[in-house]
Amino acid sequence: MLSSSLIEELKPLFDPNSVAVAGASRTPSKVGHLVVRNLQRLGFRGKIYPVNPKGGTILGLETYERIDLIPSRVETVIICTPAPKVVEIMQQCAKKGVKAAIIVSGGFSEEGEDGRKLEEAIVKIAKSAGIRVIGPNTTGVLNTASGFTSSWFGDVPMLKGSVALIAQTGNFAGVLFEYIMTNRLFGLSNIIGLGNKCDVNETDALEYVMEDPRNKIIMMYLEGVGDGRRFLDVAKRTARKKPLIVLKSGITETGKRVALSHTASMAGDDRIFNAVCAQSGMIRVEGFEELVDLAQALALLPLPRGKRVAVADWSGASCVISSDTMMQIPNGLEYAELSTRSLDRLREVTPSWHRISNPIDLTPAIQSVGPDRAYEAVMDVLIEDENVDAGLVSIAAFEGNDPDLRAFRRNIEKPILFSVIGNNVVMAKTTEELRRIGYPVFPFMRRAMIVLHRMYQVSRVIRQE
Amino acid sequence: MLSSSLIEELKPLFDPNSVAVAGASRTPSKVGHLVVRNLQRLGFRGKIYPVNPKGGTILGLETYERIDLIPSRVETVIICTPAPKVVEIMQQCAKKGVKAAIIVSGGFSEEGEDGRKLEEAIVKIAKSAGIRVIGPNTTGVLNTASGFTSSWFGDVPMLKGSVALIAQTGNFAGVLFEYIMTNRLFGLSNIIGLGNKCDVNETDALEYVMEDPRNKIIMMYLEGVGDGRRFLDVAKRTARKKPLIVLKSGITETGKRVALSHTASMAGDDRIFNAVCAQSGMIRVEGFEELVDLAQALALLPLPRGKRVAVADWSGASCVISSDTMMQIPNGLEYAELSTRSLDRLREVTPSWHRISNPIDLTPAIQSVGPDRAYEAVMDVLIEDENVDAGLVSIAAFEGNDPDLRAFRRNIEKPILFSVIGNNVVMAKTTEELRRIGYPVFPFMRRAMIVLHRMYQVSRVIRQE
Repeated sequence: MLSSSLIEELKPLFDPNSVAVAGASRTPSKVGHLVVRNLQRLGFRGKIYPVNPKGGTILGLETYERIDLIPSRVETVIICTPAPKVVEIMQQCAKKGVKAAIIVSGGFSEEGEDGRKLEEAIVKIAKSAGIRVIGPNTTGVLNTASGFTSSWFGDVPMLKGSVALIAQTGNFAGVLFEYIMTNRLFGLSNIIGLGNKCDVNETDALEYVMEDPRNKIIMMYLEGVGDGRRFLDVAKRTARKKPLIVLKSGITETGKRVALSHTASMAGDDRIFNAVCAQSGMIRVEGFEELVDLAQALALLPLPRGKRVAVADWSGASCVISSDTMMQIPNGLEYAELSTRSLDRLREVTPSWHRISNPIDLTPAIQSVGPDRAYEAVMDVLIEDENVDAGLVSIAAFEGNDPDLRAFRRNIEKPILFSVIGNNVVMAKTTEELRRIGYPVFPFMRRAMIVLHRMYQVSRVIRQE
Repeated sequence: MLSSSLIEELKPLFDPNSVAVAGASRTPSKVGHLVVRNLQRLGFRGKIYPVNPKGGTILGLETYERIDLIPSRVETVIICTPAPKVVEIMQQCAKKGVKAAIIVSGGFSEEGEDGRKLEEAIVKIAKSAGIRVIGPNTTGVLNTASGFTSSWFGDVPMLKGSVALIAQTGNFAGVLFEYIMTNRLFGLSNIIGLGNKCDVNETDALEYVMEDPRNKIIMMYLEGVGDGRRFLDVAKRTARKKPLIVLKSGITETGKRVALSHTASMAGDDRIFNAVCAQSGMIRVEGFEELVDLAQALALLPLPRGKRVAVADWSGASCVISSDTMMQIPNGLEYAELSTRSLDRLREVTPSWHRISNPIDLTPAIQSVGPDRAYEAVMDVLIEDENVDAGLVSIAAFEGNDPDLRAFRRNIEKPILFSVIGNNVVMAKTTEELRRIGYPVFPFMRRAMIVLHRMYQVSRVIRQE
């Protein structure tokens, strides 16, 4: 299929003009209520038609008994009913000429033979009626630009941004979304929970988000990949243009078994997936924590232009540990040789008995001139030294020793990552202020170092080194 | 040296009857001020003699010009002066018959040749006068029971407990201490920052904390180990009685070089250190985050009696990832086969179309009966099923879906670890309440799984399997 016609076909799933919600409910805790509420909250500009056999109104909107009884055109349907009702609703969709359906309901192929048969019936209707389907068994989509969503998330601040999230599993995409938004880590553009992938799969979703110029970074959580060859092709084209980071589970036999019962995914051979990553330039991470850490850094910072890092650490111990972390990763980062000008700048704040080297142990400078002047000098060096491609700065957050945050001016030339550890009140305050300036912050230096290493990997893919 | 005489000799470093503070200061930001303040704040029961050539009083205490001019007996001296003055003060200590000194000052062997000579001079005086020394270049000790400390930490809540912390580097021990206390993660007993180890080293410190019955768990951060054979002996004796967890840095050549300039430590061959861990039963962790995570779990929970784990997860995706994590670690945990009674209990809350297995995907139960009843059933199963040695529970923290915390009753029979992720306000509230009940909480299930695996390793060492 040509990309342009795929994008055209999938558009109703992400940016429709009108949507019906089958299984819409007046009960505030029900998914069928939350979806309608969220469409309203997000300011979805299209028409919303709640469908409920009992009639009446839901959240001020008139309801309809069936999809095919809605008097106007319906581009897309969100289905939240119990599984056994979904086939009938899909038949109504076909009759109505609906273009796309997002099936939130669970109870299909992830639940064994009966569910698998239900899912097959749905696919048959969809195919013959030309309806594209996301799901079943997913929260579906959230598009921060158009305000379109099929998700049940809570009342959270909405940070619009340039990071797309494609997840095998809608539930986790939803929780991750709330985690990212409420901690104000970075802004999101498209969130897509694939669920059982009876029609639209990870490759379709990836192709769609790649084509959307709003998306600058793409994060994926996958349990299985269907059409390996096509996925590799699309991943290759994507990763050279936009950072593409992926968490792939179902690595072990037990993990594969669990994935099968979760989203009916065939996890495949993990070595093959690693080969796909190596060939395409997709960056593979371990665990959700690393996925979020890296997406945050990529969303906030420019990519490093090279591998030369300067580290300034309040703690010598943390210098040693981050050095180990840096050197244990092959083909990775190295310490920058600081320029004479940088060494002079650091000497201004450092007692003469201390030998300055990189990593920069800041304790003597802080004890000598205080944290404000010490960190100011460090930021000068990290930003201005042309031998430095990236910086890591560690701050000990304790009463009376945290630096004035004015020392940490914004820069857009090179990535600088922060680690803040200590007293929880000072940690929270310093972390929040650094995030407001636009820096990513991690509690431990080792985590920041792992993220910076991955950023360097991304930069090599983009530069096609 | 016989242990009993070593313990006798080291006691003044941790629990003296009287202490002089050389370099005591009236300036509130100076280390020489903070140490005196902290001795007072902790309620140190012995005598405190600030030493300052300028005379007057500091924090209500009369000062003395020199150590040897203090009219009463002085058991221990804390030295916070600049490095060049330390030799002279040690001479005063010798003259006065002081038994122990904690040298906070930096600028010794970690700073090159001149510093090394200064350190040698100190060692010479200490040896001939029979003074035991911690440091130089360290914050030294904090004993939550006696209220004795040489550290500059801030005004934080003091959780007394049973975890001892021995760290190569006093600065980081201090920050870690504030992090643990202000987040109320667990209580500490002895904190020892070793610094340059000109006399007392990691083995002495380990032997001392092992003998103190208050200490139930020992955590260590090391950059180098001096006397490998004796360390192995003591580690072996310790690890079979008390969980002994260690973070050892200086793994890579770069890490070793940085360690040398940080605390003048010879990091040694990392393979040898791994062999020491395997022989002694010491549990090696990666990074400070893992060190704190594991200590927290060990402090709060009993050890697992076996390897059979039940996992209950709000998210199927997280079930898959934690399965991978579990199975990727060799000789590790496995999924428990739930008893018929447990399966029946879970069926009470689960819709009939959902197949119950372990890991337990809780979404269908939560959607069917709500989070309170779903989690109540899960806790019944985890606590009461005799096939289950340990439990992991994951909670999605979002408005209206977080369970009533009364479902999570305390148990002391087996370890249960929690993972809480989602909306940051709900996350903070749920995490705090679970910690108050006595459970450790982690943001991502994968981290909880790694911790549980280490706990299982510890349990095998203690049971001498």
